[in-house]
Amino acid sequence: MVKIAIDVMGSDLGPKELLKGVRQFKEKYPNVELFVVGKLDEIEEAKDIATLVEASDVMGMEDGALEVMRKKNTSMLKAVELVKEGKCDGVVSAGSTGAFLTASTIRLKLIEGISRAALISPFPRYDGKAVTILDIGANNENTPHQIYQFAVMGALYSSKILNAHKPKLYLLSNGSEEKKGSPLIKEAHQLLKEHNFPNFMGNIEARDVLTSEADVVVTGGFEGNILLKSIEGTASMMNSMIKNAFKKSAISKIGYLFAKSGFDEMREKLDYRRYGGAMLVGLNNVVVKAHGSSNAYAFFNAIRVAKEMVEQDVISLLKEELKNGIKEEN
Amino acid sequence: MVKIAIDVMGSDLGPKELLKGVRQFKEKYPNVELFVVGKLDEIEEAKDIATLVEASDVMGMEDGALEVMRKKNTSMLKAVELVKEGKCDGVVSAGSTGAFLTASTIRLKLIEGISRAALISPFPRYDGKAVTILDIGANNENTPHQIYQFAVMGALYSSKILNAHKPKLYLLSNGSEEKKGSPLIKEAHQLLKEHNFPNFMGNIEARDVLTSEADVVVTGGFEGNILLKSIEGTASMMNSMIKNAFKKSAISKIGYLFAKSGFDEMREKLDYRRYGGAMLVGLNNVVVKAHGSSNAYAFFNAIRVAKEMVEQDVISLLKEELKNGIKEEN
Repeated sequence: MVKIAIDVMGSDLGPKELLKGVRQFKEKYPNVELFVVGKLDEIEEAKDIATLVEASDVMGMEDGALEVMRKKNTSMLKAVELVKEGKCDGVVSAGSTGAFLTASTIRLKLIEGISRAALISPFPRYDGKAVTILDIGANNENTPHQIYQFAVMGALYSSKILNAHKPKLYLLSNGSEEKKGSPLIKEAHQLLKEHNFPNFMGNIEARDVLTSEADVVVTGGFEGNILLKSIEGTASMMNSMIKNAFKKSAISKIGYLFAKSGFDEMREKLDYRRYGGAMLVGLNNVVVKAHGSSNAYAFFNAIRVAKEMVEQDVISLLKEELKNGIKEEN
Repeated sequence: MVKIAIDVMGSDLGPKELLKGVRQFKEKYPNVELFVVGKLDEIEEAKDIATLVEASDVMGMEDGALEVMRKKNTSMLKAVELVKEGKCDGVVSAGSTGAFLTASTIRLKLIEGISRAALISPFPRYDGKAVTILDIGANNENTPHQIYQFAVMGALYSSKILNAHKPKLYLLSNGSEEKKGSPLIKEAHQLLKEHNFPNFMGNIEARDVLTSEADVVVTGGFEGNILLKSIEGTASMMNSMIKNAFKKSAISKIGYLFAKSGFDEMREKLDYRRYGGAMLVGLNNVVVKAHGSSNAYAFFNAIRVAKEMVEQDVISLLKEELKNGIKEEN
């Protein structure tokens, strides 16, 4: 039976909202055993669907590595430790990314040969398929070799989890030509090319990420975060504009009634929440980071992602693949 | 009388389309003297509105620094030289950014104290105002000191050209807290803070660039390019989706008729073409890079931007400001 540790504290909307997602998950997947970690009075309502684990402290949304060392009794750390102790197979949190990365790396350790974990997530592509992007923000600085390892992890995720056949892999750059890019990206490009990385198609510009045939887009964590957040920001701004356009007059409101079904479909297509959380790949266990502003539905999906990762045994596959990749590398 | 050199070759849509923009410009601003540079048979139709300058060669869209050295007879280089020789006050091209940057830097030279030119452009903000972003792609790698210089140039552009009062300046990062960011951004942050840069508000995340009160957002050229292109890509994808949503059925088409005016307003608001070109700031003259895929309207606006920069004498203002900024700096 799959067992998931869930930290329900430290998110924007609070534990009440996240626990709704936990309940929805349990209703849909009664066979998954859940461990909910948090302040007892805030998690008590989940006692009929999960084992409750008390934690007296909460990691702040802006907490980083330092706070992980200092705050020994946070729900986040306790949730990670449930995995470390073998009581759970994976862990989910909507708390601070930096703290979650540090806590997981310290407690669960990186897979042998991996020098940095990365945040990986699928994004809705224009054609309805998904493009897997990493690193979307676990790192501030990367080496070409780390980018290469991200490529290995991204390709595996795309083929095993999203069932992409021979996933086409691109490197995010400021131009599609080989010679374009930051020093890091130019070197990473050469590394991927020299090793004949399977289906490496070259560089891709940010404007084409969602509309091309790319199955995997690899990037350093800083640029990846900017990519992710400008997509989110632009989409959310345009959604507000669409709402306003329909609200403009009594006549436009009638227009909405007529056009509603097409727009519902579009919203559904673009809804990042159906992808749930981003996985921290490169660690010895399944670690899923839900969006800090997750609602119940997004959190439900984050737990679902963790469950799928465990069931697909994606960590063992990664270890195997990386062993081969690293052999090639040396 | 303001004189502008215009390279009409080397763009996606070709000289015919760009010359339409030139004609529209001349009709609106008959007092500006235009020099159109290109292959004679392709520019001849503009002989009634501009001085024609023949160039036998065209810079390729992917050409960079090397080609600038080799191809002595390109329309781009000839257009830049018209400024160098004092025959024109500013130059506009929709050709290769890399080549244009190199040609301008070699021929027109950087302003004393500036170590890198940057591409600067206003973007439509959610509230209808504009946010000025730089560098959006002239550089692949920057130093903290260069980022500081970008801040000086951005603040000046925002206040003098866009009439922003005490422009609020932000640094693009992966988190709003001071400690967040790549090594470059962390150092640049400290530099801006130590010098009490006027109205420096701290870091901004990519998702907030278009929806916050930021008047200026400063970034390295590589990340800036990713920001710019993911905004463009997401907006263009969503525009296609909106079209499809309205086309979905006979009923949704009726919806469009009812909601049209609101959507026209939204499209107008988001249309980057009304901002015309991006200016290459940091050089001794006015250099405007039109989008490679410019249509007549976008090219018209790029020439308008060049004219305004010349009229506002933005280069002298920059030199003055930078002299102060650089004094402070040392």
